[in-house]
Order: sequence, then C-alpha cells, then structure tokens
Amino acid sequence: MSGQRKYSVFLGNVGSCSDRYCGAYGPEFSTAELLRRVDGIKLVSGVDLVLTPELLEDIDLISQWHRDSGTAVVSVAVDHFARSVWKQGSFSAGDPEIRRLAVADAVRAMDVAAELGCDMITIWPGQDGYDYLFQADYEAERNWFADGVREVCRHRSDVRVSLEYKCKEPRNHCYVSSAASTLLLIQEIGEDNCGAVLDYGHALIGYENPAESVALLQHFGRRLMHVHINDNYRLWDDDMIVGSVHTLEFLEFFYWLRRTGYTGWMTIDQYPYREDGQQAVAESAAWLDTLESLLDRVDPEEIAEVLHRKDAIASSRLMRKILMGG
Amino acid sequence: MSGQRKYSVFLGNVGSCSDRYCGAYGPEFSTAELLRRVDGIKLVSGVDLVLTPELLEDIDLISQWHRDSGTAVVSVAVDHFARSVWKQGSFSAGDPEIRRLAVADAVRAMDVAAELGCDMITIWPGQDGYDYLFQADYEAERNWFADGVREVCRHRSDVRVSLEYKCKEPRNHCYVSSAASTLLLIQEIGEDNCGAVLDYGHALIGYENPAESVALLQHFGRRLMHVHINDNYRLWDDDMIVGSVHTLEFLEFFYWLRRTGYTGWMTIDQYPYREDGQQAVAESAAWLDTLESLLDRVDPEEIAEVLHRKDAIASSRLMRKILMGG
Amino acid sequence: MSGQRKYSVFLGNVGSCSDRYCGAYGPEFSTAELLRRVDGIKLVSGVDLVLTPELLEDIDLISQWHRDSGTAVVSVAVDHFARSVWKQGSFSAGDPEIRRLAVADAVRAMDVAAELGCDMITIWPGQDGYDYLFQADYEAERNWFADGVREVCRHRSDVRVSLEYKCKEPRNHCYVSSAASTLLLIQEIGEDNCGAVLDYGHALIGYENPAESVALLQHFGRRLMHVHINDNYRLWDDDMIVGSVHTLEFLEFFYWLRRTGYTGWMTIDQYPYREDGQQAVAESAAWLDTLESLLDRVDPEEIAEVLHRKDAIASSRLMRKILMGG
Amino acid sequence: MSGQRKYSVFLGNVGSCSDRYCGAYGPEFSTAELLRRVDGIKLVSGVDLVLTPELLEDIDLISQWHRDSGTAVVSVAVDHFARSVWKQGSFSAGDPEIRRLAVADAVRAMDVAAELGCDMITIWPGQDGYDYLFQADYEAERNWFADGVREVCRHRSDVRVSLEYKCKEPRNHCYVSSAASTLLLIQEIGEDNCGAVLDYGHALIGYENPAESVALLQHFGRRLMHVHINDNYRLWDDDMIVGSVHTLEFLEFFYWLRRTGYTGWMTIDQYPYREDGQQAVAESAAWLDTLESLLDRVDPEEIAEVLHRKDAIASSRLMRKILMGG
Repeated sequence: MSGQRKYSVFLGNVGSCSDRYCGAYGPEFSTAELLRRVDGIKLVSGVDLVLTPELLEDIDLISQWHRDSGTAVVSVAVDHFARSVWKQGSFSAGDPEIRRLAVADAVRAMDVAAELGCDMITIWPGQDGYDYLFQADYEAERNWFADGVREVCRHRSDVRVSLEYKCKEPRNHCYVSSAASTLLLIQEIGEDNCGAVLDYGHALIGYENPAESVALLQHFGRRLMHVHINDNYRLWDDDMIVGSVHTLEFLEFFYWLRRTGYTGWMTIDQYPYREDGQQAVAESAAWLDTLESLLDRVDPEEIAEVLHRKDAIASSRLMRKILMGG
Repeated sequence: MSGQRKYSVFLGNVGSCSDRYCGAYGPEFSTAELLRRVDGIKLVSGVDLVLTPELLEDIDLISQWHRDSGTAVVSVAVDHFARSVWKQGSFSAGDPEIRRLAVADAVRAMDVAAELGCDMITIWPGQDGYDYLFQADYEAERNWFADGVREVCRHRSDVRVSLEYKCKEPRNHCYVSSAASTLLLIQEIGEDNCGAVLDYGHALIGYENPAESVALLQHFGRRLMHVHINDNYRLWDDDMIVGSVHTLEFLEFFYWLRRTGYTGWMTIDQYPYREDGQQAVAESAAWLDTLESLLDRVDPEEIAEVLHRKDAIASSRLMRKILMGG
Repeated sequence: MSGQRKYSVFLGNVGSCSDRYCGAYGPEFSTAELLRRVDGIKLVSGVDLVLTPELLEDIDLISQWHRDSGTAVVSVAVDHFARSVWKQGSFSAGDPEIRRLAVADAVRAMDVAAELGCDMITIWPGQDGYDYLFQADYEAERNWFADGVREVCRHRSDVRVSLEYKCKEPRNHCYVSSAASTLLLIQEIGEDNCGAVLDYGHALIGYENPAESVALLQHFGRRLMHVHINDNYRLWDDDMIVGSVHTLEFLEFFYWLRRTGYTGWMTIDQYPYREDGQQAVAESAAWLDTLESLLDRVDPEEIAEVLHRKDAIASSRLMRKILMGG
Repeated sequence: MSGQRKYSVFLGNVGSCSDRYCGAYGPEFSTAELLRRVDGIKLVSGVDLVLTPELLEDIDLISQWHRDSGTAVVSVAVDHFARSVWKQGSFSAGDPEIRRLAVADAVRAMDVAAELGCDMITIWPGQDGYDYLFQADYEAERNWFADGVREVCRHRSDVRVSLEYKCKEPRNHCYVSSAASTLLLIQEIGEDNCGAVLDYGHALIGYENPAESVALLQHFGRRLMHVHINDNYRLWDDDMIVGSVHTLEFLEFFYWLRRTGYTGWMTIDQYPYREDGQQAVAESAAWLDTLESLLDRVDPEEIAEVLHRKDAIASSRLMRKILMGG
C-alpha cells in the first residue's frame, strides 16, 4: 500500500446495479448503508455524489457523515441523465423550459457542493446528443449547450464545473464526445472555472489513449479537473474493476498524470452488476495502488528519454522493466 | 403496401423502455393496453411474448385476445435474462438448482406456447457467459448448456426451440455468440426441433453480414427458425427503427431469405427509448415492406448471375438498379 | 444526372492498388494513362495529386493536360506518408532534419499547386502519431507539429493548407485524429489559410457522424476546406465505392453541406483493390449524383422543421420520403 | 528464462514490412540473411515459411540451414494471398482453374513440408470472402472451399492441414472467420488431418477471448493444431510485439493451453513496420517466456477452483496474485 494518490468512489458504486434487462441485480441499500460501506474500504478517502431528487433528501445525513468520518466529498454530479425529463437533452434540449431546468439544477448542485466543503460539480451530459440521422440541429443545440454551461460557470467562481465526455450511451451520439471536443467547448464557454473530467473507460471507447488525453487536456490551459477510473474491453463502457483488463495502459496513464502535475482525485466509477459493490471497489483500489507503485521502479528521466527515442523496442523493454522489474 | 411477408412484434416493444441510467423513459402500459396497441399497427399480424412472471398472470387475457383478434402468437420467449437469479447464467450456471430451473421454465414455456397455438419458443441466453478473465470454466459451462437445451428439446417435439445468438450484452462475453457457434451447439444438442433465431442487430454487432448468416444457417440443415429485426450502427445493439441506418443490407438480406425459402415470421424487436413504441414499430414495418418490394424490380436470376461474376462494379450497378430503379 | 456538385478524383484512384500482402492487384499505369482515364469519367471534372517524387517528374505533362482538357487541379497533397523517411513522423518527428524536410516539401507543394492554377494543398499526417504505449512525448511532438504547419501556412497566403484527419492507419494512433482535434490544432496554428479536409470514411471510423462534423467544422470559423469521399463498414478505412454501404448518411451529409454553404469540391478517394479503378470512380460519381438529387424532393425548410422537433418518428418518415418519394 | 514452450517465428518477420502506403519501411534481406537473423534470437528454435514463388527457389538453402542449425521447420504456409491471381479467392474462386491451382499449390506445400521434416501446412484463406454486398454466392463458394481443402487433406495423411481464421483483411469479409466457423468447416471437410490455427490477434479482432477459443477448438475433437502470436488494440490486426498491449489475457491463454494439453509450437507472427524485425521478435519471446512463468506462482487446482466460483472478485484477486505475486 503506497498511498500515493487520493481515491474516491461514486456512492452508488458500493450499492447494486440494474441494466435494461434486469431491474435489480442485487439488494437495495439506504444512503446510510452506502455511506457505511464506503467507510469500510481501505485506500478510499472520498466520495462523489449524484444529486438525484432522492439523494437531496438525505443531504443532512451525508453532511453529518462527512463531518464525522472526515471522508471528503470530492464532487457533486448533477443528475442530467437519470430522469425522463432529460430524454431529449438537458442544456441542449429544444424546449427552453428544460434548458432552464438544466441550469437551475446545476446551480443548485454548486451550492450544495459548497455546503459540503466540496469545490467541484460534475456535469455528464449523457442525454445531450441524438440517436437518429436527421434528428438534430447540430448548430442550434451546440450553441444552447455552451450558453447553458457558461451561465452555470458564472453562478459562482469558487466551485469548478467539470464536463465529462463520452462518445455514446445513453445516446447513440453524444455532443461532448472526446477530450478534443470538450476542449473546444471549454474554449467557447470561456470561463476559468470550467474544465474536463477524464473518465478512463470513456476515453478507451472513443479510441483515445488516456495518457495522450491527459497530455492534451493539460496542454490547453491545464483543464484536467477530475478523473474517473474503471476498465473495459475498449468497445463499450463496461465499467469493470480497474486493472482487470488493462495493465500497461494504466502505467502510462499514471506517468502522464505525474508529469503534468495532476494532484486531484481519482474516483472509482464502476457498474458491478453481478458483484458485491464494496468488494469491487476495494479490488480497484488495490490494483491502482499496486500499479502506480510499479512506476517507482524507474526514474522518470529514464522514461522521458525513452519517449524521445520513439523506438518501440526501447518502449517494450521499458514496459517489461516497469512491470516485471529487473 | 406489398404484404409479402408476415410481421410480428415483441409485445413489450409497443410499451416503454428503461436503460441502466433511467428507470422509465415513458409511461407504463398494462398488458391489455399493449395488446390494443399491437392491434393498431398496420402490417403487423403476430406477437412474440416474453414469459416473465408478470406476463404469466395475464395469459388468459392474451389467450382471449389471440382468439378474438386473430393475431398470431409467433413465439414465446423464456425469461432467462430479466431476473437476478440468472445473473451467473441459466443453463450454464454453476449451481445445479439454477440449471434445473432454467430447464423447467423453458419446458413450461413450451406448454404455454402450445396452448396459445404457437409452435416455437425462443431461448436467448444473454446471461450465459462471463465478464472477466479467469471467471469461467468454458468447458464445463458449455457442456451444461448443451445438456440443458437438449433436455428441453426432448420435452415435446411439436414445439420448436430456437436459440438466439448475441456476442455480448448483458454479459461482456456470451457463449451463444454467432451463427456459427449456434450451429455447433445445435449439432451437439442433436435434436430436430432445435434451430436458430437470427437477430439482425446481433448479427451486425458480431461483424456478420446477415445475408451470409442466413445462407450459413440454412446450409447446415435449414436451421433458420426465426428472425428478429431492428437496426444499429454496427457497434452496439442499439435496437433502432428498421431501415433508419441501413438500406442496402436489408435488400441483400431479403434476397437470401427468399432464395433459401425462409417463409417464417419476421419479428420487430426494438428499444424505442425516447419514441412512442407503437409508432416506432409502425415505422419499421413501413420500411420493411417498402424495402422488400424494391427487390421485385429485378429478376432473381439476374441477381444470381451478378453474384457469380464476383465483380464489385456489377454489384454496385445492381444495387443502384434495385434501389433507384431504371 | 443532376450536375449539382463538382467532383474530383485522386489521380492514383483510377490506377491499381497494393496492400500489405499483395504488391500489385492490377496492372501499372503511366501518368499519361491515368490522366486519360480520368478524362473518361462522366461527372468528374477535377483531379487531386499526391506529390510523390515520381509525380514531380511528370509535372509538365500534367500541366499540359490541365490546360488542354480543362480539368481542374483541385488540390496537391504532400507526400508525408509514402516513404520510409517519414516512418516516425513528418512535422512531429524527433529529428529536426526530418521536420525541416516536412516543411520544405509542403512549401514546394504550395508552389507547384499555384503553378497548376490550384489554390490548396492537402496535408495528411498519417505517419505522425505512435503505435506503442510509452513510445511518444505527446507534448513535444504536438508542439513540433503545430510549429511546422504554421510555418507552411505563412509561406504564401494565396494557397490554402488543408489538414486531413484520421484516427489510425498507418499509425495505430494518429495525432490529427478527429474534426475536433483538427480544430484545436487550427486554432493553435492561428493562420487564416489553414483548414480541414473531411474524409468521409475517416469520419466514420472515428465514430463521427459526418453531417455533424460538417456542422462543427463550419461552426468554428468555416474551416471545412475540402471533402474526400468513399464508403466503409465503419470499423476500418475500407475506401469502397461511395454508396455501396451507406445510403441515408450521405443524404444528411449533403443536407449539411448545402446548409452550411460548402461549395467546394468533393474528391473521390478510394482503394479499388480488385476492381477497375476507372469504373469504380464512375460508380461513385453516379451514386453521389443520384443521392444528392433525392434531396431535392423535400424543401429544406421542411427538413429544418423536422430537425427541431427532435422526434425520431418524424426523422424516419422524412428519410422515407427523401429516399422513396411520396 | 523458463524455456517451457517451443517458440517459432515466420521467416519474413525478421525482415522488413510494407503497407498500402509505403512500399518499404526498411531494407531488403536475402533468405540467407533472414535465416541468420532467426539464428540470432534466443528462445526461438523454429521457423514457419510462406511458400511464395521466390522462397521456392531458395528451398535447398533452407533445407541445408535446417540440417546445419537444427532449427525446426514448424509449418509451411501456402501462398493463397500474396499474388493477384487470388484476388477473388483461392479454393472458393468462381474460376475452376484457380480452384485447381489452389489445391495444387497446397499439395505441393505438403510435399515440400515433408521434405523439410515438417508435418504441417498452414492455409490462410485471406482472399476467400467478399468486400461488397451482392458480390458473392455464399452457398456455392462455401462448398467449393470445403471441397478444395478436403482434396488437399486427402493428398497425404502424414502432413496436417491447419486452417487459419480471420474475420477480415484483406477482404472486408472472410469466410473462415472465427474459431466456430472453422470448426464447422473442419466437420464438413471430415478429415482427421484437418485442424485450426489460432492466431491470437485474429481472435481478438473477432471479439473472441482467445482462452475460450482454445477451449472450444479442443472441445470439438482437439482441433487446435497451431498457434500464431502477436498483439493488437482489439480493433485491427496490428500485429504488434506480444505483451506490448495485453497482459492478463496472455496469462489466461497460457492456462487453457496447458489445461487442454496443447504442446505444439507458438509462432511469433508480427509486422514490425518501423522496428528492427529481429529485435521485435526477441522482445515478444522475452515477454512470452516471462508471462508464462508467472503462471507457476499459482497451483492450477487453485485456478480451477476460482473458475468454478464464477465470482469476479475472486478472479480479480487471482489475477493480482499471478501478476504481482504474494
């Protein structure tokens, strides 16, 4: 256990999951139970919340737990995706009433965050996009989206607004789709407290190399605000235990996080459909901690030197050295 | 309206959908309402049922509707996927009690089908597979699966047992994954009343060309028993309106259905998350009817002649002729 | 034959192809023969050139043909990909000598273009990227790339510099990977004569909807400078006959080209490995011309109205109306 | 260096590569030079040959080298893919002359193999398939294919005929596409000396889990005859250094090879476009040797017990134990 990095978890991750076929793979947990389950995970010292109407009712409970346990509230994610009101978009919806609601909910999340000692909200616009050809006005909807998020950013400057990108699901095509498209949006929004969440699995399904995405997001004004972590087979957002599929990618990812000075949190974000959520999170934390510690085997200067040689043989040898030692 | 082909629809398709984020995109419908909605769709004259515990309670209602409306019950699908009991598999589960339950439920579905004047059950083993490496004994589970389906087939020979393949979802890896793997299983099971369902979207996400899959399934003992139809972007089972993405593929598909003498039903199987289900089904039926009618523009002998030339220029010209006429 | 749009073709497209297994699928053609073959294609009135060392030797011949035939030279593409000197990148290469050569070759292409009455060069940095993890310094190489292209743009303002994006091949990861990442680069380069080439097939393999990419590229300063057109199965750059796989996508694409006022050329860019190249190009032109003419069936105002409804049922009906009429 | 497994390499792998853009990334090597380069790789003690017309001229040289060096000739691959004569298929070609040539070349390869002390030929029918819709008669071509390979198998029973599957490239759709479709073909061919080559990268791009494919191929009559090994990003046959992308998958793969008693060769099959081929092969061998040795950390009985629990938490712990020890 190296304890080099701050790990958080989405509160719901230690509970149960559903998918479009099965409404409940496991038992239900109350908010109080979920909080206790978070407390029981070694290496995890923060929590991310999704501000659903149900969770809002338990905010006092969470606040008390936060003060008692010392566990940080790392970010508050706005629910712009889990209710049918958003089915044709939040900030980009054609209906101006829904766009106003999207802003209002985000603004409230900023205030709730601040009350919980948290300086960041997460916006994942999973419903903002389209499924079919000839279904959307890409020009108008894009403008509405940028206008809405800009208004949110201006609500208060002491809370950061982090945009989470994903190319698809639940929409077949989502507008905030990649590291690059998020940076374009951030530039268009033009507010200092606006940045990006890199979700590791989302990056993979967009054929990004997450390590390169870190470099890109940091290159354009150090806009990497938050990291979600999980694993998948590169083709869909499987949200699996971290390290259960990929190994070397995480090593390169940690290298670039270190090199670009990312000192923020890493939030475990999984869907343990058939597993015990608490144990699945603990597994991820154990993998992450071990994987990052492997990096200490090699001097970062040596790594930088290999990167400059642009020789895959040297890269392969370096990876064997990091992973296997010796 | 050419009326050349018999179209059915999954009863739930005219209702509302959920996904892993949003529990309900639309209103709930009772079974009676769903049946009335099916009645209202031109070109659709059959229905496929999923035998959930809830639906079992409404069997008398369905039976009465079937007799009154004359709408056929095309197949009864066993629920081997929508309850947490199946979360680690049905016929391939490690627990012998669950394997027995999988057989019992399928056997009951055969009897229910027969009572409804229907001669086919559908088995979609979506939970039989695995998510993680080192999570499954591929040898033992495969044998259990074949043994269970064989036992089902032997229950009665007047009801056919059709296996629906899909390479992933809800499991990251499903055992009954492709047309070819289904044929291997059918051969291993060795019963005449066992065949395959080709779901058009499942074929696409497995990088199959559905037309070639028809030829393959028919080549090995005419094992194409049923067809599910929908559309997607080839990467995930988007379950969209038929014809909303692909055009030419459906033409080749119809050609091979005709050529191999498939005269069975075509069941619309979609997830209209954000649409009115009834209208979405009506759109699919309208697309299908129009697309198949285009084939009549060209003599099948001319098509066969083009196929034998193996020249993409000739193929392109043929497709322009079928699609655009002239 | 509607003749609404200006079609060009890459000169090599009417010749023969190789792949990594087979060095020559068809006969060799001289430049003179290729030019005559272009002349023989109805609907095609322009040509795009790749400025390889071999082609440079035939520039006088091409110039004469251009004057005699009246066929336009639409763009001159710099060869930054077909020689081993570029194997670790052109503008982003670690070796400063190679970076200088990349700039010099592009500058020369601008001058050659101007002499041929052509106002655009195409830069496709297919070798700029990486294959392996831990193989590249994403920060340094990105900066070198932007610096080099900026220098090229400043060489002369009467020739435009269009950057062609593609997420992979020949590198496993290319830097200029998407419409969004190209826009970020263009902004960083900061020159008015710098824009983007949208290659239809490249957009598809990056899970872009090409119609949305048009809207995006035009939104940020009207940066769509050129269009390459071909078709594929969405997973690899198959470079097939246009219209042989997709149908409806091209309709939406034409709609957005019209709506955003793109009046530039559309260059057919295929790899007819096993076909006669001239005939394959003629097929693509015939498909394109017919497909765009279908759009005239529906008033653009009606299309805009459907886009604003954000209702897939309406979208499906609209597509049936455009494709099938009535 | 554990030396547990027999490694071979395709002779061309230690040379230079081309792709469809660049005709030569590295220098040319004579057959004699290639053989010397094979000799220089630790851990590699066999070679696989592709029987091109050029190689046939050097057969005496190879035979002499084989006797002198003691390096095994592991298999002789028939060239059914590298000449334009095969552009529309080998065994499945519409032209009966080409089908006869395909058989004749395979028969000759069997005889050449036997003379080199080798008991296996490899058939990779990469050109047997189709690119376009409406381009092929799936029924007739499939029959021709099976008939041709059956005839080859019957030529002599002391040489095995191993079929290598791949879902695409160079054709957009290849007939021998998956482990399951290969087994169907083998059953249809009905000869004892017919089996399958599992190419690790081909399995990955077909969304197979290679470990499960081993179990499948062995389940149906122990038909796994040969293994090709390389690595990729799951979406294309990148043919990279083994272990440079995946880690845990190789561990599960080795487990199933051991469990099903595969004692044959493992042939490194890469395309080191920008690397020194000899070094790239040496890297792969080093990775493979180290990865397999990790398996010795855990008792196979313990692994079997975990597989039977079907619990991803246990699987994750097991993988951490194998990879990280302790």
